[in-house]
Amino acid sequence: MTQGPTAAHPVPVLPSRGPVRPLGLAQVSITGGFWGDRQAVNAAATLAHCETWMERLGWLANFDRVADGTTASDRPGWPFSDSEVYKLLEALAWESFRTGEAEAESAIKRLTARIARAQDPDGYLNTCFGHGGQPPRYVDLEQGHELYNTGHLLQAAVARLRTHGEDELVRVARRAADHVCRTFGPGGRAGICGHPEIEVGLAEFGRALGEARYVEQARLFLDRRGHGTLGDIPLGRAYFQDDVPIRQADVWRGHAVRALYLSAAAVDVAVERGDDELLDAVRRQWERSVARRTYITGGMGSRHQDEGFGEDWELPPDRAYCETCAGVASIMVSWRLHLATGDVRYTDLIERTLYNVIASSPADDGRAFFYANPLHQRTPGRPSDGTEVSPRAESGVRAAWFDVSCCPTNVARTLAVLDAYLATTDGDGLQLHQYAPCVIAADLPDGRRVAAQVETGYPADGAVHVRITEDASAPWTLSLRVPAWAEGATLTDDGRTRPAAPGTVTVRRAFRAGDVVTLDLPVRPRFTWPDPRIDAVRGCVAVERGPEVLCVESHDLPAPGLLDALVIDASGGPAADAGGALVTGRSRARAGAGWPYAAARPDASGDDGFDVRLRPYHAWARRGPSAMRVWLPASS
Amino acid sequence: MTQGPTAAHPVPVLPSRGPVRPLGLAQVSITGGFWGDRQAVNAAATLAHCETWMERLGWLANFDRVADGTTASDRPGWPFSDSEVYKLLEALAWESFRTGEAEAESAIKRLTARIARAQDPDGYLNTCFGHGGQPPRYVDLEQGHELYNTGHLLQAAVARLRTHGEDELVRVARRAADHVCRTFGPGGRAGICGHPEIEVGLAEFGRALGEARYVEQARLFLDRRGHGTLGDIPLGRAYFQDDVPIRQADVWRGHAVRALYLSAAAVDVAVERGDDELLDAVRRQWERSVARRTYITGGMGSRHQDEGFGEDWELPPDRAYCETCAGVASIMVSWRLHLATGDVRYTDLIERTLYNVIASSPADDGRAFFYANPLHQRTPGRPSDGTEVSPRAESGVRAAWFDVSCCPTNVARTLAVLDAYLATTDGDGLQLHQYAPCVIAADLPDGRRVAAQVETGYPADGAVHVRITEDASAPWTLSLRVPAWAEGATLTDDGRTRPAAPGTVTVRRAFRAGDVVTLDLPVRPRFTWPDPRIDAVRGCVAVERGPEVLCVESHDLPAPGLLDALVIDASGGPAADAGGALVTGRSRARAGAGWPYAAARPDASGDDGFDVRLRPYHAWARRGPSAMRVWLPASS
Repeated sequence: MTQGPTAAHPVPVLPSRGPVRPLGLAQVSITGGFWGDRQAVNAAATLAHCETWMERLGWLANFDRVADGTTASDRPGWPFSDSEVYKLLEALAWESFRTGEAEAESAIKRLTARIARAQDPDGYLNTCFGHGGQPPRYVDLEQGHELYNTGHLLQAAVARLRTHGEDELVRVARRAADHVCRTFGPGGRAGICGHPEIEVGLAEFGRALGEARYVEQARLFLDRRGHGTLGDIPLGRAYFQDDVPIRQADVWRGHAVRALYLSAAAVDVAVERGDDELLDAVRRQWERSVARRTYITGGMGSRHQDEGFGEDWELPPDRAYCETCAGVASIMVSWRLHLATGDVRYTDLIERTLYNVIASSPADDGRAFFYANPLHQRTPGRPSDGTEVSPRAESGVRAAWFDVSCCPTNVARTLAVLDAYLATTDGDGLQLHQYAPCVIAADLPDGRRVAAQVETGYPADGAVHVRITEDASAPWTLSLRVPAWAEGATLTDDGRTRPAAPGTVTVRRAFRAGDVVTLDLPVRPRFTWPDPRIDAVRGCVAVERGPEVLCVESHDLPAPGLLDALVIDASGGPAADAGGALVTGRSRARAGAGWPYAAARPDASGDDGFDVRLRPYHAWARRGPSAMRVWLPASS
Repeated sequence: MTQGPTAAHPVPVLPSRGPVRPLGLAQVSITGGFWGDRQAVNAAATLAHCETWMERLGWLANFDRVADGTTASDRPGWPFSDSEVYKLLEALAWESFRTGEAEAESAIKRLTARIARAQDPDGYLNTCFGHGGQPPRYVDLEQGHELYNTGHLLQAAVARLRTHGEDELVRVARRAADHVCRTFGPGGRAGICGHPEIEVGLAEFGRALGEARYVEQARLFLDRRGHGTLGDIPLGRAYFQDDVPIRQADVWRGHAVRALYLSAAAVDVAVERGDDELLDAVRRQWERSVARRTYITGGMGSRHQDEGFGEDWELPPDRAYCETCAGVASIMVSWRLHLATGDVRYTDLIERTLYNVIASSPADDGRAFFYANPLHQRTPGRPSDGTEVSPRAESGVRAAWFDVSCCPTNVARTLAVLDAYLATTDGDGLQLHQYAPCVIAADLPDGRRVAAQVETGYPADGAVHVRITEDASAPWTLSLRVPAWAEGATLTDDGRTRPAAPGTVTVRRAFRAGDVVTLDLPVRPRFTWPDPRIDAVRGCVAVERGPEVLCVESHDLPAPGLLDALVIDASGGPAADAGGALVTGRSRARAGAGWPYAAARPDASGDDGFDVRLRPYHAWARRGPSAMRVWLPASS
């Protein structure tokens, strides 16, 4: 299918070609359930929370200071704090359309006005460089984040353009994009930004406006990278993917968010230009990185030192960094790859990442967040009163705000447009990828209308009912993704039940309003074993239930200190337990104190068995700080 | 025993009281063997190598620039580069005495002259602060390292004073110490240095000169710490041990070298003041840290992010940082604790650290070094041509020099005075702690003379022959440390052989010249199992041989890529193999490509067994870059 720019199609990603077409906020609406609840909290609490913190810390006033000519060397915030304002604006734009909330619209206008005042006459817009008392523009491409900030501005403008149409925010973004093209375009400075993001912003803004030169500028940035274009840094050029050209790389490496934003842009550029070499390069990197450098949660990036991917098989659960933003970025890449290929392995990974990374981050009240998402916490974190900025991403407790606070706004913008990741259409029907209560209505290219309502208690319950809501004028195909873990799934249609193997199951017929197709996904808990090359979890097993990875928390043990002595019986299978699982655990005899290495093999036996309850990983530390583990030592 | 200052006693640590008295370079001389070879390379190559690099990088010229008034904001090197010059000077001072090398003496004079010219009239001496174009003195106690540098200057002066007597270097150090006392003493600024070192320098310089006020200043710095005295930093105040007063802490945490230098000073101050509370605090921290936060190699500090200790049981082999300098610092603490208590568990840990951390660092030619000492390398490092500064400490290949180059000079100063860590005396005889070919001659407090020659091929061979070289005027006691691993050791004296249990074995009699006492240590290879709470090595076993931890390198496998599929048979014991061991390995069936988590438990069986040779860990990557592992997955 090929599409031109569609101004009134509220989606974050709209390729001009591809085997499937994304459905946007005008066509899919989540109506409740697991994600509906989280969207409601996002709308009611998180958006205002983010604005409040940015006001409190002076990140918003930074724009006023530029406008008022009162900048100085004492600017609060990191050089990338502007981007948080833009990510909030993007979230508000989706939210304003999704719910019609007046407050969201009002916040957009209020923030846009402050931002617009800070733009220089030539389109440059940044509160950290180029004004009184500040370093000049673009003197520190490695760490300055100027183009990174602009990329997020462009993404916000895409959201505004596609939900509302041109306004001041879009005009500001256009001037900023033009400035970037003039400065770094052909004949300009051959620079790139240390943190990729401008590329994905330019590509989508170009698609949204039908401006091919923005896409071309994105390509230029992509192809400049990987040749030692940036200065070297102690962490090495792999940190910002300037070590190897993206077309030649085989695996993601370095800073995870950087690697993933870059790959997202590469898919966009590849699709727009029909550049299969570039598309294949990203698919190849996805394959190897997912096979060897990804946690069972979908989390990416195992190293704290550089917020980066480790080597193959380097996946420690305790020091798993798994930045929430890397989860967002992974979804960005997989969604683009799915739109480019139709392969449901990409939407499978999106589901895993949504339930186990994105859902883990925000607190129940939407006012605190996990930044890192480790799979093992040995000692409970220290409770926070919600009034302090967390200096670090690693605490075992959700924090109200961070010194580097990229994750809250990234979660907010993702949840606000999550409806747009649920379904696609192609020339012959509707494809459902993520299962949530929702209503869907869309027209196929030939005018056939597909409309359905999804009713489900997923993931707590595995039954997904797709109720057709309009009579079909002609047969069409309903496609349902069957997750890779869902061995034993069945599809019931028109009174007949048949097996639905992992991959895609389809029903093609002339549907009548009221017809119900039911996909039954086996969400009973199951054991999952790691590849033996993942050294850090040797001898351990995880428990999963549907798309959710489960975990044991110290709250649920007979004594909290038992967690580091726990061994579970993996001879049978885990038992079902409301929304979780039950296994039998034992407390293993401990080695003595003193030197922890001994001639005697540790005794694997333990005391009498006791019930160990597992709950979803995304729910951890919600009942107060806890020790926690996903990977459980298995006795047999 | 109580001693006054002993100007002609060349030892790095000389407490004024304690159950044992250290023997110095005048009393013990290593004559060859494992450590003698390394000392020879250190003398012949490393010392000049260090000076050459510091000249090349301008770290020495920094002193000239201060002296010439030509400083500017473009100073090369980190703020702590001065300390490398001082550590080299310390090494040269020991070396000059140990071997009488004219070049060492000449280097001392040459370097001292340049340093002395840079000292300000009031005693302040630093090339990074306080001069033209530089920040003022002491504006950045958190990261500026000014007092840290001075601490190393004082340690160099101690070496010079005890090997040569007062000279220009000692006078420079005295002026610097007086400046520190004036600036930070009672009534002065209540500051401390972000990197502990001034404390241990002041305490020993005070002991060497009989200047109690220097020891008192060290105490003042110690007691000021732990109260949030320094500004907070993103890594938190635990990074530089300013989170909890040292008297109250239970475990080492934060940056490992900082924690250990601080503890070394605390033992010195505790001993000088008879402060048992402080001594007990360090002993308690040693106990818990050795039991829960120390690698089998003796390496300390598991985290790259902050070069720091992780939490209890957080000991990943692949990302083990185990900085070489933390090994040096651990030896500093354990030696002081031994001198304060006589407990041989401290000298046991010193032996482990010497063979598996210190010996691992320098290349055979003494011109390249490991900075980090991981216990698992999945992919071989990239070969270096020896002309480049390594930006990072983590490469799998020894580097000629580092951007932060603390380790080469730390190894150099340790090897140059290693003789002084071999033996002690008490009121009744001689205690041998480390076994190397050496000659020893010392007088006991009552005038009895103890003299012996140690002949041994240790650690390749377990027989240690102590040949008495002077007739005794009266009976005395020869004590030999029996390492904790040495179950089955025997002592042969006067034709009789008896068991020698781990701990200490003694012979007391009126020795005659020519008498030989032989300690036979069982250095056959053995399996060693980890405490089950060390998650990262669950299901794995290590092989040790005597004090050496062994490892498998990809060089020694039928195919290099087998290392990550290797499982060894741990049902019997490892077989002996010249200087190493042999085990039977299998290549485990691999899981498929794609998603690395599956419903099926990994198959523990493999193909036909093959011989796997293990060699000492300290020898790894000496035959070219290799993949390596210490902890081996065990099948049964």
